[in-house]
Amino acid sequence: MIKTDILIIGAGPTGLFAVFEAGLLQLKCHLIDALPQPGGQCSEIYPKKPIYDIPGYPEVLAGELVDNLMEQIKPFQPGFTLGERAETIEKQEDGSFVVTTNKGTQHQAPVVAIAGGLGSFEPRKPLLENLSKYEDNGVAYMIKEPEIYRNKKVLIAGGGDSALDWSIFLADVANEVTLVHRRNEFRGALDSVEKVQQLKNEGKINLITPAEVVALHGANQLEKVTVKNTDTDQDIDVEVDSFIPLFGLSPKLGPIANWGLEIEKNAIKVDNTLDYQTNVPGIYAIGDVNTYPGKLKLILCGFHEATLMCQSAYQRIHPDKKYVMKYTTVGGVTGFDGSKKEAPKAVVKAID
Amino acid sequence: MIKTDILIIGAGPTGLFAVFEAGLLQLKCHLIDALPQPGGQCSEIYPKKPIYDIPGYPEVLAGELVDNLMEQIKPFQPGFTLGERAETIEKQEDGSFVVTTNKGTQHQAPVVAIAGGLGSFEPRKPLLENLSKYEDNGVAYMIKEPEIYRNKKVLIAGGGDSALDWSIFLADVANEVTLVHRRNEFRGALDSVEKVQQLKNEGKINLITPAEVVALHGANQLEKVTVKNTDTDQDIDVEVDSFIPLFGLSPKLGPIANWGLEIEKNAIKVDNTLDYQTNVPGIYAIGDVNTYPGKLKLILCGFHEATLMCQSAYQRIHPDKKYVMKYTTVGGVTGFDGSKKEAPKAVVKAID
Repeated sequence: MIKTDILIIGAGPTGLFAVFEAGLLQLKCHLIDALPQPGGQCSEIYPKKPIYDIPGYPEVLAGELVDNLMEQIKPFQPGFTLGERAETIEKQEDGSFVVTTNKGTQHQAPVVAIAGGLGSFEPRKPLLENLSKYEDNGVAYMIKEPEIYRNKKVLIAGGGDSALDWSIFLADVANEVTLVHRRNEFRGALDSVEKVQQLKNEGKINLITPAEVVALHGANQLEKVTVKNTDTDQDIDVEVDSFIPLFGLSPKLGPIANWGLEIEKNAIKVDNTLDYQTNVPGIYAIGDVNTYPGKLKLILCGFHEATLMCQSAYQRIHPDKKYVMKYTTVGGVTGFDGSKKEAPKAVVKAID
Repeated sequence: MIKTDILIIGAGPTGLFAVFEAGLLQLKCHLIDALPQPGGQCSEIYPKKPIYDIPGYPEVLAGELVDNLMEQIKPFQPGFTLGERAETIEKQEDGSFVVTTNKGTQHQAPVVAIAGGLGSFEPRKPLLENLSKYEDNGVAYMIKEPEIYRNKKVLIAGGGDSALDWSIFLADVANEVTLVHRRNEFRGALDSVEKVQQLKNEGKINLITPAEVVALHGANQLEKVTVKNTDTDQDIDVEVDSFIPLFGLSPKLGPIANWGLEIEKNAIKVDNTLDYQTNVPGIYAIGDVNTYPGKLKLILCGFHEATLMCQSAYQRIHPDKKYVMKYTTVGGVTGFDGSKKEAPKAVVKAID
């Protein structure tokens, strides 16, 4: 059982910054995220895209913002349970909560802050009759360890950056790469499109367009897929070890929707905008996952909400203590790792 | 008469960021500040101090933060009335407001956002009987144009960074610099203290400690001050053209307190935390100047408040329009100056 002060569901920018504000209050955090790395959408969907509305940053790449937040919270040594989805929550007799992931990892904390963004990102799947039979037996929707495709025959479907970039990457790893897209046109970074064209010309990528995968074959393990050329209506069978449809990720609120919290338009209603607590005392919702009148799904609003949440969490965890805020400019930042950052001290010195 | 969409009182970080959020909504801003430069406290009081709790900045100097905000809002061409204090506000028949400064400059806008921080910074004054008689006749509390002290006899009082730094600076400009402090010990940056010691040794600064100015003399213009050495109780007369007590600045809510807004503990009460509007519709209070239950006087909270204020201001200014938010990552930022910042576009390109 992992124990912490504030258990944060979602390791996007809002969840990450909560670690910093909690740390200033001497509260420790642990974060759970379904994605394999921190940063949420910023890392998974658009790490190379510039954001222009982070206050004080005329321009910052989403990935850079995450790196900076990770650096900022480092002194407060957050714990992470990554690649696992928070599945169930149970209130304990002592008022604390136990959250269990889809892989069975258990976490206990007196305060739970849901910073789940738009939800956990689930892959969009093609509509194929026996698809689920081959999941984990040749069909995958994300590439987590490219090495497992070494010397294999891989068929990628999709027409965006993921499909292009992974085709390029696997052309050097796999034995055979086939790229299938329902249009002739691909949509992505110019150099990725041009690189795929080049690899196709060199015979390193087998391109079938406009086409769709229409059937999967194989005893237990995937052995073959049928691809229909939608121009000619001809079916082509391709022998493959793996079929990887990369049709994008779609966020789903997921199991959190069943935690007994008030839900409105796929978001968690908060009771008030003073501490962003939900209808269940001790459970907060911050960032894009919450809703209230006039809510703006902006990263900078999540930062504010995380900060006020931490103050309320402190009162819940230490009902007998009164916290007196000290500016970081005055008091510096003392990490749980013993590190100390502070402004150069003024000297008091006689002149004689 | 200066006309704008949102008139912002206070050009600290919160007021500056409001320009950006207003700009995204195609609203133009004008800022009034009593200080001679934008940035509020960050520029005036602690430009060289690091701040650790700006989200995404593990560390940033206050002055740097202001520079970055100025850069961020540049596309939206804000107007500035600096070195003037907003004095009166009058509601017009058309529902707009006219704000007049202490120097008579008039501004008109349908929305006024007070981002006045802790108030306008007023100098702490020494308790001396005929002090006011000499104000602007030899006594000054801030140094705005150092050149006016060229070849003059200047007496500075104080023991902090301002007193040290201006004594050093004026040692090269003025004919005679006397530094008076009630203690032998000065409190400031080590190199400033050491530099004053050196200038004193070289005879370029005349140091009197522990001492206090106890009397001012002169017909109309200041001619002489009496300094009491508090160790020996001896009085010394010093001929001077200028006496500059640098005892720090103390924020005062000032004339805003008389604008008919609900005030609580020297701050403006806001009606709600959804748009930070005051009890007077059309007047908002954002950042350190406002108060509500659980209020935290943090720059990052001001950013959030400024953002929600702008949405509400937009509805007030365009009651018939519905604003659909577009992420800067998707839509980029289009400045009033015709500038355009946006993410590199994806291409749509056939591979043959």
